[in-house]
Amino acid sequence: MLIVKKFGGTSVANKERILNVCRRCAEEYQKGNDVVVVLSAMGKMTDELIEMAKNINPNPSKREMDMLLTTGEQTSVALAAMAFATLGIPAVSLNAFQVSMHTTSAYSNARLKRIDTERIRHELDQRKIVLVTGFQGINKYGDYTTLGRGGSDTTAVALAAALKADACEIYTDVDGVYTADPRVVKKARKMEEITYDEMLDLATLGAGVLHNRSVELAKKYGVQLVVRSSLTNEEGTVVKEVVKVERMLVSGVACDKNCAKISVIGLSDKPGSAFRLFDALAQANINVDMILQSVGRDNTQDIAFTVTGDNADDAIHVIEESKKRLGYQKLELEKGVAKVSVVGAGMMSNPGVAAKMFECLYNSNINIKMISTSEIRVTVLIDEKEVERAMNAAHEIFGLDEA
Amino acid sequence: MLIVKKFGGTSVANKERILNVCRRCAEEYQKGNDVVVVLSAMGKMTDELIEMAKNINPNPSKREMDMLLTTGEQTSVALAAMAFATLGIPAVSLNAFQVSMHTTSAYSNARLKRIDTERIRHELDQRKIVLVTGFQGINKYGDYTTLGRGGSDTTAVALAAALKADACEIYTDVDGVYTADPRVVKKARKMEEITYDEMLDLATLGAGVLHNRSVELAKKYGVQLVVRSSLTNEEGTVVKEVVKVERMLVSGVACDKNCAKISVIGLSDKPGSAFRLFDALAQANINVDMILQSVGRDNTQDIAFTVTGDNADDAIHVIEESKKRLGYQKLELEKGVAKVSVVGAGMMSNPGVAAKMFECLYNSNINIKMISTSEIRVTVLIDEKEVERAMNAAHEIFGLDEA
Repeated sequence: MLIVKKFGGTSVANKERILNVCRRCAEEYQKGNDVVVVLSAMGKMTDELIEMAKNINPNPSKREMDMLLTTGEQTSVALAAMAFATLGIPAVSLNAFQVSMHTTSAYSNARLKRIDTERIRHELDQRKIVLVTGFQGINKYGDYTTLGRGGSDTTAVALAAALKADACEIYTDVDGVYTADPRVVKKARKMEEITYDEMLDLATLGAGVLHNRSVELAKKYGVQLVVRSSLTNEEGTVVKEVVKVERMLVSGVACDKNCAKISVIGLSDKPGSAFRLFDALAQANINVDMILQSVGRDNTQDIAFTVTGDNADDAIHVIEESKKRLGYQKLELEKGVAKVSVVGAGMMSNPGVAAKMFECLYNSNINIKMISTSEIRVTVLIDEKEVERAMNAAHEIFGLDEA
Repeated sequence: MLIVKKFGGTSVANKERILNVCRRCAEEYQKGNDVVVVLSAMGKMTDELIEMAKNINPNPSKREMDMLLTTGEQTSVALAAMAFATLGIPAVSLNAFQVSMHTTSAYSNARLKRIDTERIRHELDQRKIVLVTGFQGINKYGDYTTLGRGGSDTTAVALAAALKADACEIYTDVDGVYTADPRVVKKARKMEEITYDEMLDLATLGAGVLHNRSVELAKKYGVQLVVRSSLTNEEGTVVKEVVKVERMLVSGVACDKNCAKISVIGLSDKPGSAFRLFDALAQANINVDMILQSVGRDNTQDIAFTVTGDNADDAIHVIEESKKRLGYQKLELEKGVAKVSVVGAGMMSNPGVAAKMFECLYNSNINIKMISTSEIRVTVLIDEKEVERAMNAAHEIFGLDEA
């Protein structure tokens, strides 16, 4: 068996944790398996490097930032290789150049294009554990790139796909994917299995366990993922294409607190006015989420949408600057709102989920500000203060509470 | 003009110093010159990385150690590129992979074999300052290597040779090469010029300004070096093949305090006994310096030699262990001895230098324990306590004192 294991920054934050990671991998190796280990930078190292850079140049070039940040994972894999040696296990560390981890050109936010597996296979053939730097790649100019937030998960999945690995295990500080955040919903249960699509919706919605690009990639190449704890030996959650038939209508409840709602009222109802609005925001690199368009009075329309709380003021600024071109009457900003979603592949064949969700919120006296749905998800925008009550209510009504 | 400038770790130890380095290089650039800058790791970073490694594995593999240490120079060049940007100067950082800095395979002590100049030339053509990581290379396995102590000087000289640079400037914390260490000999003078061979002897003898491998390389490829201060604008010392004809017999006086003398007395006077002795030491990786062989009593011989003080106890241990095979009568160790040398290309045509040196030490009442000479150097081994007096006496007798 060939197994890819990924450990995040907290799992390699110091000597003891690095040794702990190595011992876990050594167990797998001693069963006769081939082991590829993907590591992130140690603990706060990436943050420290960013601070060093900003101290010299508040607005450093992304190319040089990637050149700086990639030293982080290289430090982790080199130290881990030394730690394996103390356990008597042969290991070798490889960075993005040594593997040939080809990405697109975009510094700080590149996408993996192709991974050469020759060097890794050569090292595995010699019964070495192969340590690979997560998060980083090289582009067509022969320069370092980084994969953006959660990039090491993506590295692990891409490696598993390229190597046709038998398993890809993502080790984190939680022991799996839960039906809801256990800090918010006390009766949340750990899921044994979840589909890629459900995981994607949960990742996007801020479950925070796996980065969604890594899940997309796993889905595309059929890489079965296991999310599990680096501290315990519990089974974790399997992420795959099809899960057992007998399952809940809804798999999980997620929330995303960092939201703001912006309403543009009295836009002239002419073709292209929505385009001009969202184009102005896109030019300013502001991501827009839920969108609601309604007909207003006197040949006008109203458009409401959500952005992340961090982007709210920027978005207002952009729209105000384009006021002449857009031609609207009023602009409203509502901060302190949050998205609550129920996600489940079972929804596809059961149309009643949205109604049940609205009913349960109504019964809890929670006002819904916006609604958005997909095939496997129902999302509502509510007051941030109501998030905990809403999540617990939804968790209960869909039968997710622990037995 | 194409100029290679090398700055050591103390010159890039913090933000202010990095900016200082960049400003100096910017001046050169703004004259219209092409500038390649070789940097070492920041201040104590290499030492800190070594400590991190030793904390995890007291005896880490050299391959992984090089993988770890090379992050040091990469950090320096990335930060310096960001600093150049704040000055409005376009710059790009390149590591050993990006340049293709080919070395021999030996981890921790590799030698440069070939440097691809294509990438550097491409960046220079775009009028960028090119920052290159010193000290590091890649071997035929596609792994990082390091060049050993003083390796960044070697990188700079090799780059200057490969790029056919018009000048190679080595910036250090002293403002040039002196006729003697100014801390020991108050009347020491800075030299305007010195030959490669003289510099080589001074480097080997512990003048500590340039690593001797970089001087060897400069000699081999005819790269004219300038040693100068990173803090002042003084001229520095030029190192080249032939210097002005009118010059002193002796160019400089150097010392090496960290020595020990070992005498092996009563070795059986058979062919191969010297070989067996020095082979045993070589096997243990102990470098032997001055060697003196003399005929002893009763068909025996005595051999005396020097090692660095750090190696003295190891050397004694090795010889005692081989006692049976070597067959000697007595072993003597004398610590606290030092080498004092006078160096000068002018000696070649003037045979009286050694005699003058011995006379001056005799007049100063300093006892000579061993003598070794080369075409351009006379070295004596004396008591460490007499070093200062010996150096000052030699400095004066050869007319090196400041006017």
